[in-house]
Amino acid sequence: MGELRMSRNANSNSLQMMAGHVDQDRLWQRHLDMASIGATALGGVHRLPFSKEDAESRRLFLSWASARGFGAEMDDFGNIFVRRDGTERTLDPVVSGSHSDTQPNGGRFDGIYGVLAAFEALEAIDDAGIATRRPIEAVIWTAEEADAQFGVGCLGSQAYANPSKLPKLMEIRNNRNIPVKQALAELMEDHPRVGHRAFKSPIAYYVEAHIEQGPELEARDKTIGIVTAIQGHRSFKVQVTGEAGHAGNTPERLRKDALVAAMQIFSELRKVFHDPSDVIRFTVGEMDVVPNAMAVIPGSATFTIDFRHPEPEALKLLGDKIAVVARDNAGPCDVKVSELRNTSPVAFKGIVPETILKAVENLDYSYMYLPSGAGHDARYIAEMCPAGMIFIPCWHGVSHNEAESATLYDMTAGTRVLARTLVELANL
Amino acid sequence: MGELRMSRNANSNSLQMMAGHVDQDRLWQRHLDMASIGATALGGVHRLPFSKEDAESRRLFLSWASARGFGAEMDDFGNIFVRRDGTERTLDPVVSGSHSDTQPNGGRFDGIYGVLAAFEALEAIDDAGIATRRPIEAVIWTAEEADAQFGVGCLGSQAYANPSKLPKLMEIRNNRNIPVKQALAELMEDHPRVGHRAFKSPIAYYVEAHIEQGPELEARDKTIGIVTAIQGHRSFKVQVTGEAGHAGNTPERLRKDALVAAMQIFSELRKVFHDPSDVIRFTVGEMDVVPNAMAVIPGSATFTIDFRHPEPEALKLLGDKIAVVARDNAGPCDVKVSELRNTSPVAFKGIVPETILKAVENLDYSYMYLPSGAGHDARYIAEMCPAGMIFIPCWHGVSHNEAESATLYDMTAGTRVLARTLVELANL
Repeated sequence: MGELRMSRNANSNSLQMMAGHVDQDRLWQRHLDMASIGATALGGVHRLPFSKEDAESRRLFLSWASARGFGAEMDDFGNIFVRRDGTERTLDPVVSGSHSDTQPNGGRFDGIYGVLAAFEALEAIDDAGIATRRPIEAVIWTAEEADAQFGVGCLGSQAYANPSKLPKLMEIRNNRNIPVKQALAELMEDHPRVGHRAFKSPIAYYVEAHIEQGPELEARDKTIGIVTAIQGHRSFKVQVTGEAGHAGNTPERLRKDALVAAMQIFSELRKVFHDPSDVIRFTVGEMDVVPNAMAVIPGSATFTIDFRHPEPEALKLLGDKIAVVARDNAGPCDVKVSELRNTSPVAFKGIVPETILKAVENLDYSYMYLPSGAGHDARYIAEMCPAGMIFIPCWHGVSHNEAESATLYDMTAGTRVLARTLVELANL
Repeated sequence: MGELRMSRNANSNSLQMMAGHVDQDRLWQRHLDMASIGATALGGVHRLPFSKEDAESRRLFLSWASARGFGAEMDDFGNIFVRRDGTERTLDPVVSGSHSDTQPNGGRFDGIYGVLAAFEALEAIDDAGIATRRPIEAVIWTAEEADAQFGVGCLGSQAYANPSKLPKLMEIRNNRNIPVKQALAELMEDHPRVGHRAFKSPIAYYVEAHIEQGPELEARDKTIGIVTAIQGHRSFKVQVTGEAGHAGNTPERLRKDALVAAMQIFSELRKVFHDPSDVIRFTVGEMDVVPNAMAVIPGSATFTIDFRHPEPEALKLLGDKIAVVARDNAGPCDVKVSELRNTSPVAFKGIVPETILKAVENLDYSYMYLPSGAGHDARYIAEMCPAGMIFIPCWHGVSHNEAESATLYDMTAGTRVLARTLVELANL
């Protein structure tokens, strides 16, 4: 830690100076060092949860902490907390961070930016010699991107905020039939040892920086997004079963074409989910036809529905219509609708977004309020403490994609806002 | 060959006796032996064109020919002709057969029944000691079912009837980017050697027996279908390109959802191709979405259209509308329509269907006239000689499916009609 200690009532000048200590070259170098772990040929990152690359990213993070003299603790799910102490050691910490794992062939910014911003904030505060009442911590949450393999994401933050879920989480299996328990044990074997932290250890305030993963900030030319909420999220699998048959010989009246029925259901659902205010997010992302051959009438067609909305009522009302619409539009086919996920919305209100706003205004960045369409670890940590999120723009809203990109200007701006927010919160 | 030789003017009695020589137990045993090659757990057959199983079915066929003392020849595309000589060796042969390959997870009857019926007819004629003027041959055409992998079917019969197509056919690539040339070379390596036959060697008459692959014979309780025509057939690939994006963050107004556009195009095409008289055959059999992930807006969606009609005018008029409808309904996406196939209808008229009718009447089977919705090798061989087809019923019209089924009674009836037809034609 730096030798200079300022009064805990850091005034506006010292905060301004601290923002100046956010070092964009250091931030970028660390960004590059992280991006090299699991780097793909197309400029993305393939660093799956629990993988060797995941472990490697954690070793790098801990080596930075160690070089800086920051302490570190880890809980039994591998969530790592790097700590800069406060002047009042018994107070609960202010925590900031995100995840270091990625989607399959994902990008270099999703998740890891929030970790780098938090660590850079810790260093800038330290470089500025600012003392805070509360400790400030930078966290890596384990397996945020687990949904691609395990069908469920944010495993680490869910376990931390609500350890009663653990037995269930541990048994979830990935697409190679390996349970979370085993994948986690393998990660732990390869993991550097640090002090132990109990699940649900209190957190005073939580702030997560993240790329937007959507197009709004770029489209409206804003540097900072103050996140108002994380949408609720329901997802469904719709399995339509018809009868395969010869495309040349089977007359229309005798067909049970599963793709025709799937299309009819999709088309009706589009009408039900049409929203002139453009708040509803309704996506059919997967469609699998069997046997998927040109001259064969589809015998089955299975598709997924991803539906998100910030309001619990709309989430329930519209989501519950899916099975009804599917049944009413399946024609001569059978249809089965299963719900894969039902996560309620979380609003970010009060002190954390208010403090972010104050930081943005003091630093004079352009900003807007917006909800997050994606889920984040903040969704679960918000169940245990006041929380909020800072978004920065990303190129064309592209994310979960190797082409994901953000500018160093925006990354630095987000880190400055974060550092200032953390100091303010740590002095409350 | 049998030792007894009858006069070439086989009378009605000898023909009736010959029909009695069609041996249903032998036919069924050979059916089972063939069905064991590439057998699937669900009772179907997976014997893809050019595969090891394809080669194995040919070895079995040639072993039967060899055991019986029939000669065999093969052309450079692997089409195999097993021959029972006629009394006048310089005359062109009467040829009958079909294919031994199958669709992916196809049935035990499609194609192979025509091969087995032709071979059984040769044996029955031989067992009855009937001499014919012309040679009679049983043929396996190569790669009839190639459309599932290569997008084009009936490769062997196309090559035989029109070898000028060969350079183009050889370059067609399958879904693993392997050209026909290479797949054929691999089949040939594994193939038993027989005498060489030149492409386009003349055929006097061609008769193909096949399961109907449609529901009409069963629905009308007829044993034999005399095929009047093979429908014209156009097929298309529609490639819709949008932009992948995060399902939770991208508002509707900024989306370029390729699956939504594909669905819209499909839906409009269904209206254009709606036909109260139920003659039009319009099928979307393949749909491939990229990246096909639940939380990602589809960046591309590619689907195929299989369109068949017995009338050339309808085929042109409606087929030509596809690209227009696709462009008009692609919304914010780009769309590219490529035509994969344009085969004009072929009518079966004159001596071959007339001889089939005579055989059916003499054997006193119930029958009806009907067009074929499916393409068959007979479609191409009809370009070089008079041709016709005999259909037998199949269960519920199900085909290109592991559940495909036909009764031994109908298989035997079709073989008796075929044997009698072949003898009559071989004495013309």
